[in-house]
This record gives sequence, C-alpha cells and structure tokens, in this order.
Amino acid sequence: MTPFTSRRHHSVAALGEMRLIAAIRRWLGDSTPVAPFGIGDDCAVLAPAKRHQLVTTDPVIYGQHFDDEVPARSVGAKLLKRNLSDIAAMGGIPRTAVVSMALAPDTSVAWVRMFYLGLAAAARRTNVKIVGGDIAQAPDGFLGAFLTLHGESSGPRVVTRRGAQRGDWIYVTGRLGGSLLGKHYRISPRLAEGAWLARRREVRAMLDVSDGLVKDLIPLTPAGTVPAVFAKTVPISGAAKRRARITGRSPLSHALCDGEDFELLFAVSSSANLTTFERAWQRTFPRLRLSRLGYFARRQDLPATALRLGDYHGYEHLR
Amino acid sequence: MTPFTSRRHHSVAALGEMRLIAAIRRWLGDSTPVAPFGIGDDCAVLAPAKRHQLVTTDPVIYGQHFDDEVPARSVGAKLLKRNLSDIAAMGGIPRTAVVSMALAPDTSVAWVRMFYLGLAAAARRTNVKIVGGDIAQAPDGFLGAFLTLHGESSGPRVVTRRGAQRGDWIYVTGRLGGSLLGKHYRISPRLAEGAWLARRREVRAMLDVSDGLVKDLIPLTPAGTVPAVFAKTVPISGAAKRRARITGRSPLSHALCDGEDFELLFAVSSSANLTTFERAWQRTFPRLRLSRLGYFARRQDLPATALRLGDYHGYEHLR
Repeated sequence: MTPFTSRRHHSVAALGEMRLIAAIRRWLGDSTPVAPFGIGDDCAVLAPAKRHQLVTTDPVIYGQHFDDEVPARSVGAKLLKRNLSDIAAMGGIPRTAVVSMALAPDTSVAWVRMFYLGLAAAARRTNVKIVGGDIAQAPDGFLGAFLTLHGESSGPRVVTRRGAQRGDWIYVTGRLGGSLLGKHYRISPRLAEGAWLARRREVRAMLDVSDGLVKDLIPLTPAGTVPAVFAKTVPISGAAKRRARITGRSPLSHALCDGEDFELLFAVSSSANLTTFERAWQRTFPRLRLSRLGYFARRQDLPATALRLGDYHGYEHLR
Repeated sequence: MTPFTSRRHHSVAALGEMRLIAAIRRWLGDSTPVAPFGIGDDCAVLAPAKRHQLVTTDPVIYGQHFDDEVPARSVGAKLLKRNLSDIAAMGGIPRTAVVSMALAPDTSVAWVRMFYLGLAAAARRTNVKIVGGDIAQAPDGFLGAFLTLHGESSGPRVVTRRGAQRGDWIYVTGRLGGSLLGKHYRISPRLAEGAWLARRREVRAMLDVSDGLVKDLIPLTPAGTVPAVFAKTVPISGAAKRRARITGRSPLSHALCDGEDFELLFAVSSSANLTTFERAWQRTFPRLRLSRLGYFARRQDLPATALRLGDYHGYEHLR
C-alpha cells in the first residue's frame, strides 16, 4: 500500500492537524491514556519511577525501513518492535512511548489509520502506553515516524554492552539472516528472554542484533581480544538460505551480515557452568534456539578454523 | 548555510555512521554523559525518579522549521528550546534528551557539526544531558531532527492545560507575534517563570503559545465559556509591527496568529487577589512583561468590545 494519495480529500492535508490528532486518539484506543497522562497536553506526565529507567529511540522512514510493499499495519508494529528490542537487550520492561510523525501533505489518511492501528495492537500486546507525540509537516514524498520508548529495569541489574572479558562465551538467540525477506516485519522482541538473562549472574554483557552479527559483535568484544566464531555454530535462518539463492552469496554471509534480526547477542562468563546455564535456558524457553557461537580470544590465539569476520561487512547506515 | 553539499568527501555518507556517531559525541562534549548513562548502548539508563516525570517531543525539519538562511547552530538550539518550552508550560525542570536524526546522504558534516554545537550549548545552559539518539538515512533533500525531552515536576504540582473555570483571568508572558522575523531562533524558554507559576495556587491551567494565541486559547478555555480578550490588552511585539508593514495585515492579527512565541499562557482563579499576584510577579521577574488579556465569559455575556477571535486563524499544521 503506497502511503501517498493523489486524491486531496483522502489526504492528511484535507483532514487538517486537529482532526488528525483526534482521529489518532481514536485509532490508538485504550493503548493511549487520557491527558494529563497521555496525548493532549504540553507534556505527558508519568508517575515517579522506583527503578532505573531506560530510554531508546528508533524511527521508520519510507524508502529506508519500509516501502509500498509493506502493509501500513506492519510498519506501525515494526516501529514499536525495533525499540522494544533495545529494551529487551538491557533486560528491561517497556512502559511508555511517544511518537513524532513527519508527514508529507499528500499522505493518505487510510495509510496513517492502518499504521496507528498496527502500532496500537503491538503496544497492547506488550503493555506499552502511547502517552504523547507530535505531528509535523514534511516535504513531498517523505514519511517518517520517530518513536522514543521508555522502560525500566526488570530487576536489580541493567545489562549493558560492556562487561565481557577474555575467554567469555558468545551466545545468540534464534536464527540469523534473511531479514529482507520479511522477517523484520515479524520481529518478536525478546523481552522475556532479555529479562531472564539479566537475572543470570553469568551473563556479563548483551545487545540486540540490529546491524548484523559481524558489526554488532564489535561493541561486545573486550579490548585486546577478537571473537572466535565458527562457521558451524552460526544459526542460519531459512530466510538466509532463500536469500542466498537470489543473491549468489553464501547463506552464512547473509546470517553474519543482514541485520534487523533483533535477536539477543550476549557474553557468558568463562567460569560459568555452561551445562547448568543451557539447561536452565531450555527449560524456560524450550522453543527458542540458543547457539554458543564461540568465545573472545587473544588475537594471537585465534584458532585457524575461526571465521575471518573482517572479510564480512555488517550493515552500515549512511553508506 | 545550506545543509547539503555536492562534494562527497564533505558529506555524512563519506564519513559513515560509526565515525559520525564518534564525532557527535565529541561535539556534544560534556553535555553528554558516557555509556551506560549516555550514548553508546542499546538504551540510555537514567536514575530512578522521585517526582512526576514529564515527556515531550518536537522536531525541526528542513523547509518547515528552518531553511538555508538559518545558521545550523541556531537550528540545534531551537530544537531543544521548542521542547524546553513544553516543559516550562507544565512548571517542570528539564533533565535529559534523546535526539533522532534523519539525514540525506549528501548532508554536509560541517552543518551537522554546527547543529550539534548549538544543541550542546543550549543543553549546557539549561542543565540538560543528551543521553542518546539515533542516526537514520533519509531520502535526498530531507533533513530532520526529532528530540524527546524528559523532565520532572519542580514541586508538588504539575500544571496542565485543564483546570480553568468560568470567570478566571487570562494572562500571557512577554510579547506576541512576528516570530517569522527571527524571534523563534532566539527563544528564551520560560523555565523559571513556569516553575514559579506552578507554585502559585491561583494559577489553574497553563500552556505555551506555539501555534498562535487564538489557537492556543482553545484548549485552555473551560466548556461553556469563550475567552473575552480585548485588543488593547494584547502585548504586540515590535517584530509583529514590522511584519505587518510587509504583509499589509494588522500588527494585532500577527500577535494573535503568528505562533512560535513560546510565551506562557495561563489562567488565574477569579477569586485570586490580582494585585498581590501581579506584584509578586513583578518582584520576581521585573524584566518580563505580564499581560492580563481578559477572562473566560459565558458566550451570552461576551462584551461587545471583546475581540471576535473566530475571525483570526492560528497556525494549523498540514494545511
């Protein structure tokens, strides 16, 4: 569905800002509280927070994160899920969001409606309240939605990207690659898994795979080490294999580089009992694969069988 | 200064995302804390909050909120100040912000640098920490920055837009109109004034004038009443008068409609002692004009000398 319309009476410009905002409140339904705790005042007002708070922001932009092929409902859901994945990566619980829209005047009201219905459905499923936002006019052809998500720690600890040490094990959830074949619109943010991992002392550092395993391993890697990851340990998705048939590249390179997997990548202490840890995982999340990719090694100790990750390129924005 | 460059080696695309983010951290300097409390992790981590929290979001978009004529530093400052004005309007104290940028590949690094320096300077002056953000690629010709600002209440009370009653007095700070002649790049968010007003019991409702007095009076007006505002009470700015000479419209209509004044508009209880209130204001803010515009009247009691506000139109986005 294209977001733009040539029929002016179907456009957001014809509806006007005030009626559009009123419509958005209807579309969001019970996923938005009423002012002063939601849309309709200068600021949203939130209750005091006893735990550490988490804040993240990620957009979806037409031509960049979605196109005419993607249903507007899926775009709305994806906007929230991208941000949910960041909260999951810190072991947090999502709470509230604000959404800033930049709309060309000829954006169709029907598209915006489906977008907000998709956003509201995803918010309802994850107990997130849309507490505010903004509507701004954008130049012709532009459509972007910028969401800021607030959460809090699920326990005493927030897991950051730092903290891994030499010898620590590298794990990833799920299967990787092929997100261009639609998976990134069916993201399941790993919220329960992230909160569970944050309670495990042997987990030292964590992030979500958004730019591809190769690129996202970089911030997790302790200084003076390199990731020793082996080809046979990488969980390659079916989509990565299908995509490889189209591109002529290897399924492994798609699993390593594609990005938008939104799986959790984390480091487990070298002194941990891996059997205990992996059994506990399997009991708790029997349906989600967990893969031990390798470990952080001194550069001079890198096994000859380890993947040369420098030969692969993760997704770099603005290139 | 135009934000775009035809020399590829001067563009953000040539720099690449990772080096751009490193540069942004340098440009922000001490206005950004280090991860995990700032840029560089999946989420920013904020300390627990004892008071009610405030959240607001507003963007600046090329062609809409600024153009080639506006220095990039001023655009960065304006982005923060627009949001600060919303915190001021609730009587709050600003604390932290996240910034989501959408950049065309040919955006010049020099422009982005000056933008962030302007943002950092404004943040430093108001004790705001930039704790995180996102950089996304946008189509050619697009440049937008979307900021979400977090604050907290300055005292036991958050002042919302609702709460005015029939007979209450209408006040506004400063002078109105002519923002197109540059004033909106020199906004002084009324933070101290908003916090002071939130502590005064006679103040019942408040907002900031962003879309023009006529439009912004609407949400403040109690049901069953209309604002009785008189021509001679409206504080017309010098810029509104200069603008009127260009447009041929009246200075009053510019003061009523221009928008982006970022002054505080509020209701004072009809039972308040106005002399006491106005003297307390003058002692505390001797240099900032305070104007009593009128009061909320029953429609059938509207004096014949009151302005017919329906004849004027505030700024409506998306039109």
